[in-house]
Amino acid sequence: MNALLLVAHGSRLEQSNDEVSLLSDKLRASCHDDYTIVRTGFLELATPSIPDGIEQCISDGATRITVLPYFLNSGRHVVEDVPEIVADVSKQHPDIEIVVAPHLGASSLMVDLLIDSAKQVSSIG
Amino acid sequence: MNALLLVAHGSRLEQSNDEVSLLSDKLRASCHDDYTIVRTGFLELATPSIPDGIEQCISDGATRITVLPYFLNSGRHVVEDVPEIVADVSKQHPDIEIVVAPHLGASSLMVDLLIDSAKQVSSIG
Repeated sequence: MNALLLVAHGSRLEQSNDEVSLLSDKLRASCHDDYTIVRTGFLELATPSIPDGIEQCISDGATRITVLPYFLNSGRHVVEDVPEIVADVSKQHPDIEIVVAPHLGASSLMVDLLIDSAKQVSSIG
Repeated sequence: MNALLLVAHGSRLEQSNDEVSLLSDKLRASCHDDYTIVRTGFLELATPSIPDGIEQCISDGATRITVLPYFLNSGRHVVEDVPEIVADVSKQHPDIEIVVAPHLGASSLMVDLLIDSAKQVSSIG
């Protein structure tokens, strides 16, 4: 059973964390054929943590988990922190396949998304 | 003349800032019909700053500038910092129309981008 774990940085602003949960809900509705389970995990400042998110997926019956970093750039969090956390949890579950997707800025769809966003403007002055 | 200013947080990692510049280059190649000028600005930790990026657009001949926040969530940077900086610069150029686009997480294309990214996986364990 395939699971998708949307991994975000986490924020002190509840609104920002809620946006990630909302996006997770939209993902769940859109990719149910490919991923039966869709959950979230936060690197810091919010819960569930990434290890807890992975454990929840496994409790739900996941046998393959795709960790999807909700990060724009390949900074330290994407290059070091998330893979290290995932590797640690992975050692405790050798029977579960856990893979990590690239950061979002690497997507070939990003330019289209940027152009779409640029058209949704509000006036400042 | 329309300009697009891609505004990112800025990072201590040069690689991360270079990714923003590279994305700006891709944008320039893709949206030249709508935006003659495409430049970048950084909130902190990298140059040019957002005010300098706006000034560069104006020097290039821009009469309308769309500021495009390269941020995923509507945190403090998106809600307060970027609009305040833009409003300050805007007061000095009342003849230039400056508008601010929403953060990227608000785009209706984000779910498609996430699903696309999830398929570009590398194995961890």
